[in-house]
Amino acid sequence: MVKELIETDVVVIGAGISGLCAAKLLHETGLDVQVLEARDRVGGRTFTARDPSYGYVDLGGAYVGPTQDRILRIAKELDLKLYKVNEKERIVSYFKGVQRAVSNPDDPSSLSSNPLDLFDVNSCLLKIEDFSKQVPPDAPWKAPRAKEWDSMTVKEFMDKECWTSRARTLVGLIVAAIYCCEPHEISFLFFLTYLASGQGLRRMLSTTNGAQENKFVGGSMQVSEKIAALLGNRVVLSSPVMRIEQEETVTMVTTHSGQQYRAKYVISAVPPPLLHRILFEPPLPDLKIQMVQRMPMGSIIKTITYYKTAFWKEKGFCGSAMSDKGPINACFDDTKPDGTHPAIMGFILSTHARELCEMSTEQRKQAVSEHYAEVFQCPEFLHPVNYVEQNWMAETFSGGCYVATLGPGVLTSFGRELRKPFGCVYFAGSETAVKWGGYMDGAVEAGERAAREILHAMGKISADQIWQEEPPSIDVPPTPVRVDPLEKYLPSVPQLLYFLLAFVVLLVAVLCVYLV
Amino acid sequence: MVKELIETDVVVIGAGISGLCAAKLLHETGLDVQVLEARDRVGGRTFTARDPSYGYVDLGGAYVGPTQDRILRIAKELDLKLYKVNEKERIVSYFKGVQRAVSNPDDPSSLSSNPLDLFDVNSCLLKIEDFSKQVPPDAPWKAPRAKEWDSMTVKEFMDKECWTSRARTLVGLIVAAIYCCEPHEISFLFFLTYLASGQGLRRMLSTTNGAQENKFVGGSMQVSEKIAALLGNRVVLSSPVMRIEQEETVTMVTTHSGQQYRAKYVISAVPPPLLHRILFEPPLPDLKIQMVQRMPMGSIIKTITYYKTAFWKEKGFCGSAMSDKGPINACFDDTKPDGTHPAIMGFILSTHARELCEMSTEQRKQAVSEHYAEVFQCPEFLHPVNYVEQNWMAETFSGGCYVATLGPGVLTSFGRELRKPFGCVYFAGSETAVKWGGYMDGAVEAGERAAREILHAMGKISADQIWQEEPPSIDVPPTPVRVDPLEKYLPSVPQLLYFLLAFVVLLVAVLCVYLV
Repeated sequence: MVKELIETDVVVIGAGISGLCAAKLLHETGLDVQVLEARDRVGGRTFTARDPSYGYVDLGGAYVGPTQDRILRIAKELDLKLYKVNEKERIVSYFKGVQRAVSNPDDPSSLSSNPLDLFDVNSCLLKIEDFSKQVPPDAPWKAPRAKEWDSMTVKEFMDKECWTSRARTLVGLIVAAIYCCEPHEISFLFFLTYLASGQGLRRMLSTTNGAQENKFVGGSMQVSEKIAALLGNRVVLSSPVMRIEQEETVTMVTTHSGQQYRAKYVISAVPPPLLHRILFEPPLPDLKIQMVQRMPMGSIIKTITYYKTAFWKEKGFCGSAMSDKGPINACFDDTKPDGTHPAIMGFILSTHARELCEMSTEQRKQAVSEHYAEVFQCPEFLHPVNYVEQNWMAETFSGGCYVATLGPGVLTSFGRELRKPFGCVYFAGSETAVKWGGYMDGAVEAGERAAREILHAMGKISADQIWQEEPPSIDVPPTPVRVDPLEKYLPSVPQLLYFLLAFVVLLVAVLCVYLV
Repeated sequence: MVKELIETDVVVIGAGISGLCAAKLLHETGLDVQVLEARDRVGGRTFTARDPSYGYVDLGGAYVGPTQDRILRIAKELDLKLYKVNEKERIVSYFKGVQRAVSNPDDPSSLSSNPLDLFDVNSCLLKIEDFSKQVPPDAPWKAPRAKEWDSMTVKEFMDKECWTSRARTLVGLIVAAIYCCEPHEISFLFFLTYLASGQGLRRMLSTTNGAQENKFVGGSMQVSEKIAALLGNRVVLSSPVMRIEQEETVTMVTTHSGQQYRAKYVISAVPPPLLHRILFEPPLPDLKIQMVQRMPMGSIIKTITYYKTAFWKEKGFCGSAMSDKGPINACFDDTKPDGTHPAIMGFILSTHARELCEMSTEQRKQAVSEHYAEVFQCPEFLHPVNYVEQNWMAETFSGGCYVATLGPGVLTSFGRELRKPFGCVYFAGSETAVKWGGYMDGAVEAGERAAREILHAMGKISADQIWQEEPPSIDVPPTPVRVDPLEKYLPSVPQLLYFLLAFVVLLVAVLCVYLV
């Protein structure tokens, strides 16, 4: 059956937030767009499941926080409401089998009671923050020490700078929680770039005043669903693209079903490793072919475990915990804002995800419940009433989550290719964003930037209008990240050792003088 | 236009050496096979170009040597003749602008005249050889130190073990020459596994008695062409596969043109990162989806530069040179065995390839000629009569060459997935071989093993017949790799320093005694 050719101005590949924001902007400018989505749903790496047993639940990207002004603007426009993730009661940390619970998330006593640990953690994190400020997220290869940092892994940084096992554990947890991989798998330059893009370590790791502050009432997939509703039948589901053929002035896009679209421009809004899925004629440029092989997606299974009541609050726990023990390194309260469906959301990350994916769902549910019982020291956690999970590694149209992770050498050798258009094909997707890359906010930035690149190519806007500053959100205002002035002056472990050495030398000298 | 469904026993994807050897074995067993090749030629990563101006030339995989018994067996069966790569005259090394020419390739004076350099190089290479012997190439994750070695890059090994810049340079050159990437890009465990698979460093690096000893008269692509001729119309060109749908007992394979094949079994003989090109229904298992994103192909441009005469031989050079200076790190004589078409084959590797790919062919020809003139110190090299090259990074159906390169963590987290069948789909391709993986010989091993896995699944052979030992070739017999007994007892740099320290202490002691 030969299908009728569809003509359009722009074909957008991928109906996640990035592709849909690109299409929305182009559509509003009066251009004709067609959005082709491989899955039978929109949303990409955001996925809100719905079921009477739990109402709705975000099984993919879910959190938004201050300084993520683009996604906040879009959400407001679409009339979506936010609610705050519960952090009222105490937060738990669980290292080496010891539970610590603190009321203030910045309280360092949650990490260790050993001052040496705290000095070391403090100096490592300060160094990371300081280094990340030296990396321009739009061109990390231009950082003064780019070559050095890109030829080492985060593990190498840890080997050099972390003196205590607590500091190593903490940096390892940060890599797992933010990148869904191991410290030896990613380049230190990529690690710093991503932190710079996410407005620094504190902003990324925090709930209150940070990236995990809010969730959408009704789920994050509504962003995509509402944009898709605006675009109507311009969004076509279950249409994986198999081929892009570029001729002088037209580009032909063909889906697996054989449907063809003739467009002036194309925006690819799929995760970089999935570009391989599409056969380009002429082929992608050499460095781009090599780049897309070097951006593997992280490893994660997102779990939500439901309980009859939010009994942890009664025990003075807000539901947040971080743990050096698997399978859950980080968890948060996921009870609905109206108090219904009490639940804990927990991430199975990196190596834990790769190991536990071979279990049955029932076994994972068991392992996760036992984990909470141990970490919170509440046997009540052993009796969940429901359990939902999403193994993103098994998602053929994502390849993993949350984001592409770059090994040593990739940014300096191939980074320049990331946003470089190929003929009439432009590249969006959260990985190509400069601010909050990998997050929903970065998806909006990337989509709108790619759309404006096309408007510029069409002569509708000037080059300096492609990248636009975003006014700060009024509804979710950031407060400055508070750094205790003391932290800056705490000694690092080597400084402490030097001090002790100097003290001993002085003592000996004084004793000598006294005795002589 | 609806195409008629083709029924067959086995569909083989990829008409490189691996796929064709699989198909040949199955065909000889009486099974019906269909080989689907994306390109308009067979051969995969072997590619023999033909032109009156140079006769024929291997622009891809070309060399075969002793212990590569499987490819030698197949080549003999196909009546292909070998000739020896010229290594009669002196070999050149060029480090830090100093040319050294030696007659014996094992002569260490080619590396440096500083004994400290030689001690260091010697101890580093001995350590690498020793470690690689501890890695079982069929299950490198079982090596006693697998976890440690897989969480570090080759650069980390260099940082720890190489005391001199010459040793660092040499290990860097080995990584470039064998893996087409940088030492910070690959896992040390992968590095060792590949060396173990290639029968050790010396065997891999040598021309005489090593992997570069011979070439095929008429070119290596003839292996594939001759097998394809045996298979006749069972090999279908220009047929990239876009989809594999598995049902209970049948598997449907669909090409981009819409042609469908219904088969009992499928062999994928494409490089692992290209598995992404195929949409699997049901999708590939989670760990396999993640694995294929973590096996990027190396970066290489192969060049052949032609001259009027082989003037270098008259000057006492065989044409082999290694250099720490780009763009060519390694080159060999490529004159035809009958003395026609005098030429030098040179590899542009890793970072050089990624940088020089942005030049025009004419600029690269110029850079390569100037390089030879400098390294051999012969201005005659400035005047080539012809130049041919192949940029494998631009090959959409290879993604790079020679082979998939694994970053830190991949082997221990995902290595077990490499050869694991998925339903009725089995995996060949040189990357899945245990001996000479990444080489033509490994391609044969992998193809035949995958074919026998299917024969076993069909009940035609027993499980212990899947993996078969290969009798040694009579025509290309290996001589044992000669290790100078002295090398084992040469001190390493730290040993030398200890020795010197001990000597100084002793001297001081003796002086004290003498003076007192």
